[in-house]
Amino acid sequence: MADYVYGPGRTHLFVPGPVNIPDPVIRAMNRQNEDYRSPAVPALTKILLEDVKKIFKTTSGTPFIIPTTGTGAWESALTNTLSPGDRIVSFLIGQFSLLWIDQQQRLGFNVDVVESDWGRGADLDVLEAKLRQDTAHTIKAIAIVHNETATGVTNNLATVRKLLDAYRHPALVLVDGVSSICALDFRMDEWGVDVALTGSQKALSMPTGLGIVCASPKALEASKTAKSVRVFFDWKDYLKFYKMGTYWPYTPSIQLLYGLRAALDLLEEEGLDNVIKRHTRLGTATRLAVEAWGLKNCTQKEEWFSNTVTAVVVPSYIDSGEIVKHAWKRYNLSLGLGLNKIAGKVFRIGHLGNLNEPAVSHYAIRCLEVMLKEERQAFAAFRSGFKVLDSRSQKPSERPACFS
Amino acid sequence: MADYVYGPGRTHLFVPGPVNIPDPVIRAMNRQNEDYRSPAVPALTKILLEDVKKIFKTTSGTPFIIPTTGTGAWESALTNTLSPGDRIVSFLIGQFSLLWIDQQQRLGFNVDVVESDWGRGADLDVLEAKLRQDTAHTIKAIAIVHNETATGVTNNLATVRKLLDAYRHPALVLVDGVSSICALDFRMDEWGVDVALTGSQKALSMPTGLGIVCASPKALEASKTAKSVRVFFDWKDYLKFYKMGTYWPYTPSIQLLYGLRAALDLLEEEGLDNVIKRHTRLGTATRLAVEAWGLKNCTQKEEWFSNTVTAVVVPSYIDSGEIVKHAWKRYNLSLGLGLNKIAGKVFRIGHLGNLNEPAVSHYAIRCLEVMLKEERQAFAAFRSGFKVLDSRSQKPSERPACFS
Amino acid sequence: MADYVYGPGRTHLFVPGPVNIPDPVIRAMNRQNEDYRSPAVPALTKILLEDVKKIFKTTSGTPFIIPTTGTGAWESALTNTLSPGDRIVSFLIGQFSLLWIDQQQRLGFNVDVVESDWGRGADLDVLEAKLRQDTAHTIKAIAIVHNETATGVTNNLATVRKLLDAYRHPALVLVDGVSSICALDFRMDEWGVDVALTGSQKALSMPTGLGIVCASPKALEASKTAKSVRVFFDWKDYLKFYKMGTYWPYTPSIQLLYGLRAALDLLEEEGLDNVIKRHTRLGTATRLAVEAWGLKNCTQKEEWFSNTVTAVVVPSYIDSGEIVKHAWKRYNLSLGLGLNKIAGKVFRIGHLGNLNEPAVSHYAIRCLEVMLKEERQAFAAFRSGFKVLDSRSQKPSERPACFS
Amino acid sequence: MADYVYGPGRTHLFVPGPVNIPDPVIRAMNRQNEDYRSPAVPALTKILLEDVKKIFKTTSGTPFIIPTTGTGAWESALTNTLSPGDRIVSFLIGQFSLLWIDQQQRLGFNVDVVESDWGRGADLDVLEAKLRQDTAHTIKAIAIVHNETATGVTNNLATVRKLLDAYRHPALVLVDGVSSICALDFRMDEWGVDVALTGSQKALSMPTGLGIVCASPKALEASKTAKSVRVFFDWKDYLKFYKMGTYWPYTPSIQLLYGLRAALDLLEEEGLDNVIKRHTRLGTATRLAVEAWGLKNCTQKEEWFSNTVTAVVVPSYIDSGEIVKHAWKRYNLSLGLGLNKIAGKVFRIGHLGNLNEPAVSHYAIRCLEVMLKEERQAFAAFRSGFKVLDSRSQKPSERPACFS
Repeated sequence: MADYVYGPGRTHLFVPGPVNIPDPVIRAMNRQNEDYRSPAVPALTKILLEDVKKIFKTTSGTPFIIPTTGTGAWESALTNTLSPGDRIVSFLIGQFSLLWIDQQQRLGFNVDVVESDWGRGADLDVLEAKLRQDTAHTIKAIAIVHNETATGVTNNLATVRKLLDAYRHPALVLVDGVSSICALDFRMDEWGVDVALTGSQKALSMPTGLGIVCASPKALEASKTAKSVRVFFDWKDYLKFYKMGTYWPYTPSIQLLYGLRAALDLLEEEGLDNVIKRHTRLGTATRLAVEAWGLKNCTQKEEWFSNTVTAVVVPSYIDSGEIVKHAWKRYNLSLGLGLNKIAGKVFRIGHLGNLNEPAVSHYAIRCLEVMLKEERQAFAAFRSGFKVLDSRSQKPSERPACFS
Repeated sequence: MADYVYGPGRTHLFVPGPVNIPDPVIRAMNRQNEDYRSPAVPALTKILLEDVKKIFKTTSGTPFIIPTTGTGAWESALTNTLSPGDRIVSFLIGQFSLLWIDQQQRLGFNVDVVESDWGRGADLDVLEAKLRQDTAHTIKAIAIVHNETATGVTNNLATVRKLLDAYRHPALVLVDGVSSICALDFRMDEWGVDVALTGSQKALSMPTGLGIVCASPKALEASKTAKSVRVFFDWKDYLKFYKMGTYWPYTPSIQLLYGLRAALDLLEEEGLDNVIKRHTRLGTATRLAVEAWGLKNCTQKEEWFSNTVTAVVVPSYIDSGEIVKHAWKRYNLSLGLGLNKIAGKVFRIGHLGNLNEPAVSHYAIRCLEVMLKEERQAFAAFRSGFKVLDSRSQKPSERPACFS
Repeated sequence: MADYVYGPGRTHLFVPGPVNIPDPVIRAMNRQNEDYRSPAVPALTKILLEDVKKIFKTTSGTPFIIPTTGTGAWESALTNTLSPGDRIVSFLIGQFSLLWIDQQQRLGFNVDVVESDWGRGADLDVLEAKLRQDTAHTIKAIAIVHNETATGVTNNLATVRKLLDAYRHPALVLVDGVSSICALDFRMDEWGVDVALTGSQKALSMPTGLGIVCASPKALEASKTAKSVRVFFDWKDYLKFYKMGTYWPYTPSIQLLYGLRAALDLLEEEGLDNVIKRHTRLGTATRLAVEAWGLKNCTQKEEWFSNTVTAVVVPSYIDSGEIVKHAWKRYNLSLGLGLNKIAGKVFRIGHLGNLNEPAVSHYAIRCLEVMLKEERQAFAAFRSGFKVLDSRSQKPSERPACFS
Repeated sequence: MADYVYGPGRTHLFVPGPVNIPDPVIRAMNRQNEDYRSPAVPALTKILLEDVKKIFKTTSGTPFIIPTTGTGAWESALTNTLSPGDRIVSFLIGQFSLLWIDQQQRLGFNVDVVESDWGRGADLDVLEAKLRQDTAHTIKAIAIVHNETATGVTNNLATVRKLLDAYRHPALVLVDGVSSICALDFRMDEWGVDVALTGSQKALSMPTGLGIVCASPKALEASKTAKSVRVFFDWKDYLKFYKMGTYWPYTPSIQLLYGLRAALDLLEEEGLDNVIKRHTRLGTATRLAVEAWGLKNCTQKEEWFSNTVTAVVVPSYIDSGEIVKHAWKRYNLSLGLGLNKIAGKVFRIGHLGNLNEPAVSHYAIRCLEVMLKEERQAFAAFRSGFKVLDSRSQKPSERPACFS
């Protein structure tokens, strides 16, 4: 007996990725393959590479649109700029920074982990202390998530830059912008970020499949001597094809390129700064609701509040996983689980990407309110309402048509 | 300056048609044209004609899937069964029965109008009186809406049949099931309905474009002698092509045929009786909400409550049109206007088709609650949130990409 | 055992409608329903009504975009401009003019049929004789197909106008442009056409579902006094809603409106005159091929050659239906059958709409060449190649997935 | 001035990937994101992992569906089974085996390259000699392409297995099946292949984006001790999530999973062995045509003829790149270029994936015939036919609508 629902109505994604795709992006991707060695695809790519820089707020950066996920984008950022044994100062503040650190260690770097309690931001005082001491410049890179998706914590990148400048430290700044870029205020050039990256299924509001990495001139320079082993993720191959004007060292997804074109057009239409303001409103409203419910935000100080994801701490007698499960089964509402050490203790509301105010406050928040307060009489009629199918685990011939 | 919105997020249709289309139906229609004279399209049509009978709960009826709208389906029902000057007893209980009566008059029938206050059902006592008197059987047909979409009133068709049987009256029963079939309990054979009809964009949850008409054997017999002028809507042409096994007197929409296939598959999967129960829950919840708001249902008695649409009476100092406009601009929420004599006095919540319980009670009802109670502090951040574009009135070169 | 094919590869439509839809039109239609009473749909409609005039080459005409087929568009043209008993001079030159004449007769007009051999154009000498004699102006309308789809014959509308002018005859000119408009040179204003009409699935290259009718000021004037019974097709209702700025007397197909927007954008991009030139090339190439095969064109004189459809006469010992069947089964190639009195004697190659030169000459003509000359050794390997499925006649649970 | 075409008609892909996608696969992918941590996605994944084994003809293998391309799949195969310095015998027979060898070298393996003339298969006599000598089992792996996409050469994998068995050699067999699996006869279990891999955009006929890798039990065992650095491509992470039943170490593309479901359903419907037979017919017909043209197949012996791609040698006074360019501009026909040392000397006809016989022989071959023989009089009318747009390089506001 399956434990999930299929029936009338829509799916509502309030996980911090993959997010709800706008219809024009779905339409743009509804297409045949094309020959990527024809003159048309390079022409499309050329302007995409130009336009995609805007989401990083960079003019000097070089973007790479890699057929991979955020995890691959991380690997691309690290292996192209560093050599095995290089010292990285890396901030552990939640599950995603933990996974990145795990990757850094497995790739053979010397990771100097600065841990914070989950719910707190990167400890920049520790960074300052380390920079002060590191007159020999043994620190080759700072690796930091702009926004920790697991806890809803936004780090202060401007301060990272100020500290580096203050100590005239040449370390590269590698930023995971997976749950920030296109939603939070991110300024690659102004903050002197050397590698920034995101994934297409996050605030860009596309399907999964593109890891978008942007390298500063300094990062590109570093890539010439970086000794980490890499082939699939090697920028060198991309740069070679950029120079030839054919752009792709291997086959890109045509559909995702057109989807990216549509996504960038929508961003331009709304205006990136308006998009960021919209996320501020969505984050504010979510936090006001959490406060109104009498629940605690996992994020411990206002300075770290995230406008893309809010991790809500549930009372100790509740398993937050049950809320997530219930939301999915009864409301077609996808929420994020608590991960690792906060599993069962928090659930996460993703409020990023193609969402507007009423969707957040009048659907997601409302469903949560009802779940949290127990369903009241007016909705008692719904109690037995949902159909439970296990269609997706069935053989084709047994699968119902809705699955098609 | 345009007065409508385009931006992130989805459209929420709570008009009583066109309704929200399920994704599998959209997918099924995402296709090329086909040659309707090939062997494939007749094979598809044959089984569609068989399966579509189920939505009428008929085994003896003959369906016609006409490339038209509900208005065309009305015309098909009337002109195929009646001759100019024929007496029709017709019930005026709202804007859609009014429009049908207007059509009946313009088509040259002798329409015996039985009017009720808007908000009340068909006056069957008057019908009884007329049947009692009509020993000469001058009444050739009873024309009645199963559900008046303008007022949210469901008529009692079983009683109509009982009265006709009681007086052994041979009048044809023509039923507009536009906002009932596939959502309310409708029983063509059991209730002795002679012509029933619906439109694809209603509870079938498809795009507009199919007027689906079903004729009883008695109606088919009547069509042989009916003298109303008709060509496009003539059942005779359909029946000729049915006999030839090619089915179509003129070109059908291939896309809509595959869409209908998907819609019928979904109905079969959920089960028509479960679909009807779901609509009962949606109607009940909506009415409980209206009651909780302290507002009046336009429908004056419980026996006429509609499970597909609820017309809500607003206090006299409010223009209901403003609510509809505001809901659309601020919440991407489409509600129905009050029509004709109840314009400005009611707004309508459509709760039919591809909707589930949380969409109705946690989105539509919630948005309405917030609008009605004034937006409270928690949502104040949204006040300036919406972008107003007039994209759809622009020339192609000026239109933003989201419009594509 | 089914007699049709499903398998890898594409369908190739060379019927004179429905035609191959361009991908941007399919993408534009891949969407949800919208509320047609919101401000957005009227804004879209307004500009569509303006732009659609261009396909008729009219500035003074009033277009009606009716949710119907070509047959419905015929009915709209006739019933809005004429009264029962009115004399129409109507040219019978093939199956489609025959069907229109049948409709004219069933609608109660006094049809003065001018018949030509099938393969010849309208006999305008007879028209001249009738106009000369008709000093009393008993002829109320001339009904003529611009292009007879069954025989591939294009009539000379400029001459019709000249004759009417020469005799100062006030008859309305009603033109079926179903297989001409958007492909052949058609000039509503210049030729003084009073009603012109087409269907969306023809040279506009959309799905079936829109009957597009355009009325001259004189036709609109005539509609005020025309006594033919009409409701669904009544222009009066459209004009009333045009005036109100809400445009639709009943529910339009949102998907088709966006499809029409995309189709008109493509026409504008290619340029209507370039589109017409392209069809001239497609027609010329097809006729050269037919000549090269040593077969006869059904069209008897060059002046009537059609650039949208070519009817090819087969030798008497061949049943043309077999060629059509074989083309469909073996080549996924849809050709038109010979209809009525030329059934079995001709097959038709539609070369209109979204087609280019290599598709016509290198696919359709090539497949025909191979079929006609017997398949040669090089392709012998294909003989046993096709899979025959009867998927479309099966119950959902038995249908293969490709059908989804 | 742009040098590419956009206009009416379709694109015809006869490159050896990306190939033409079947409509049911496009439809299946026309959908929203879903939460991959919900119960639904694992249920879908579970059966996909089971069904995808069939394309490898394995029951004992473990598949990995990785969000990457063929290049990434190569990297996954190598890094999971081998340690830096390990000796690989690798066959260089064309551009793709060359690229794989380059990757092997850059990943730090000791690559023992066995080169053949381009157009010849892997030299298995040399392999035999090496195996005979290698009594110390210094050869850790044999890396071989099943089908070299650049030259149209199919290697004999059964013989590789026989040789290994004959010398009881434990080397792993790593097979690039990118242009063979789902099209040529490939038998993982029977031939004792240890790692086999393909990409979604090849014979599976999907968009680019999935690298599908299958590991034998012996390969899985090897992965436990392989010391190559890997994170994104590490099977260990996949296996950990397989065990947990959540399947994905990072975000998969929901759309591609549903596309894969549809693609596997189509394969099952046609039958993998019928698919292979179809490719045999397509390959045979193409070679017969090349022979009829008097041109030479790049593949030098019949035993290596490829049924998925044919590389055609052009006379020395022709630049094959011109043919490819011309085919694309004039016929919307995408052919493969000659690569590296055969650039300008061959063009390639891809005849794999969603293609049928008439598409190959009546479109691609026909267009090539006409190009090669000079266009004859019958098609002279086309000479000026094509519109040249540079739409894809334009800014959004300047781009024509067809681009949307």
